[in-house]
Amino acid sequence: MAQAVQASIGDSEFDRDTAVTLRAPGVHEARLSAGWTIFGAVNGGYLLALTGRALSGTLPHPDPFTVSAHYLSASRPGPAVIRTETVRTGRTLSTGQASLVQYEEDGTEVERIRVLATHGDLDGLAPEVRTSARPPAIPPYERCPGPADAPVSLPGGAEIMDRLAVRLDPATAGWVLGAPSGRGEMRGWFGLADGRDPDPLALLLAVDALPPTSFDLGLKGWTPTVELTVHIRCRPAPGPLRVAISTRNLAGGFLEEDAEIWDSADRLVAQSRQLAKAPL
Amino acid sequence: MAQAVQASIGDSEFDRDTAVTLRAPGVHEARLSAGWTIFGAVNGGYLLALTGRALSGTLPHPDPFTVSAHYLSASRPGPAVIRTETVRTGRTLSTGQASLVQYEEDGTEVERIRVLATHGDLDGLAPEVRTSARPPAIPPYERCPGPADAPVSLPGGAEIMDRLAVRLDPATAGWVLGAPSGRGEMRGWFGLADGRDPDPLALLLAVDALPPTSFDLGLKGWTPTVELTVHIRCRPAPGPLRVAISTRNLAGGFLEEDAEIWDSADRLVAQSRQLAKAPL
Repeated sequence: MAQAVQASIGDSEFDRDTAVTLRAPGVHEARLSAGWTIFGAVNGGYLLALTGRALSGTLPHPDPFTVSAHYLSASRPGPAVIRTETVRTGRTLSTGQASLVQYEEDGTEVERIRVLATHGDLDGLAPEVRTSARPPAIPPYERCPGPADAPVSLPGGAEIMDRLAVRLDPATAGWVLGAPSGRGEMRGWFGLADGRDPDPLALLLAVDALPPTSFDLGLKGWTPTVELTVHIRCRPAPGPLRVAISTRNLAGGFLEEDAEIWDSADRLVAQSRQLAKAPL
Repeated sequence: MAQAVQASIGDSEFDRDTAVTLRAPGVHEARLSAGWTIFGAVNGGYLLALTGRALSGTLPHPDPFTVSAHYLSASRPGPAVIRTETVRTGRTLSTGQASLVQYEEDGTEVERIRVLATHGDLDGLAPEVRTSARPPAIPPYERCPGPADAPVSLPGGAEIMDRLAVRLDPATAGWVLGAPSGRGEMRGWFGLADGRDPDPLALLLAVDALPPTSFDLGLKGWTPTVELTVHIRCRPAPGPLRVAISTRNLAGGFLEEDAEIWDSADRLVAQSRQLAKAPL
């Protein structure tokens, strides 16, 4: 993932596109960039990063520890307002709420997502790790196919793929050639295309950036997120991330997606689970 | 779990203790029963069932599909007020918010938990199941030890245990005798002691009713929940439930607990994950 000019945290396209401007107490203006859309829909992880920025500016603790978002309607590129509320402040943790809204042409306000988040300070955590979890066995980056290796371009446009350095584990990429594994798994490398290193906000993006596990189950079409909760467990080390997502239960028209994110130091830096509607 | 007189859904202690009374639009009065406490602290799943009752009376859809709760302060037995808000109503799903508060002696309001929940109609789900998940291998109910088999009574009182029919898998009960497995697992049978069959509200209780996985990691003491999200995937069949909880990552003073609940028809009826503070 070498870049001619490597972007840095705070000075990258991701940082510029998640900028929020405080207009009044608890009222933040944002602009949803078309650069983080897939088939015209704004990515759900990008929305979490935006509300995360607004909450980091609201709460006394900087880092999202656990973020729960309920997705209400499909966001569109363009202006948005994020309202934040401080729910509770404590010594080591504080909890806030955020609501991202957009406006119809006639001025009608439409809420897109509502978020509860508990923040803390990742740098204040004790260093001890006691875990049974092991990183996923993903082949080296160079041996994993990226978008340029696909036999055909994605129709309709997937702007977000130009901004990500995603490489899929070949074991979970069979669906590209019409041969899904049927196991409901998706694994791969994740980075930002401009080389910006990961931080907690980028982890909020990364949990929802791989293709849906439903593709590996042989299903096609859209899997809209109903609810997504992320736990950030550790500040990620510089370098590419490994993401492993699995679905155990596709039933009744819904499926869950469980994601783990590992950093270059082999630490489990984030866990997430979402409930999504299965493709029809 | 045969009972002399079996309670039924709608007419049981659990139903009476989760009753809410609408006092004004969006304002529900409740009384937190001392019967669902452990060492004086009100159980977090019981609180979820209470807010679930209030939201079922608020939203146009009856059943919780996905519920995200952030725990703000420790609840006490006694009066409480649950405020609800309808966030969005759709054809098949609706989203609401609930806030459970209690009052100090001087009248100060203290918020206990804040909840986002998306409801639907479990009876309207398509019957198809496509899943790789298998029920946990738990020995038959009769061969799993219950509270009466413990070598010593729990000091300080665990009122909730009188109202539950919980039997632990012997493989995850070694900590009772000072020999935890170290794997971070907790499995067992779950029912209500009066024989009331499970429903979605009882599933909200069941995800947080077993001893913490930290006991199986050899830790003692309290693991307060920071955030808990539950997905209800199916209306449970009558009869006892099997609950399997695991922790993959205890790090930096926090741990996650992942729970799956299976019903007597071998269906995965609920999945949950919580972030909790590890014992010091």
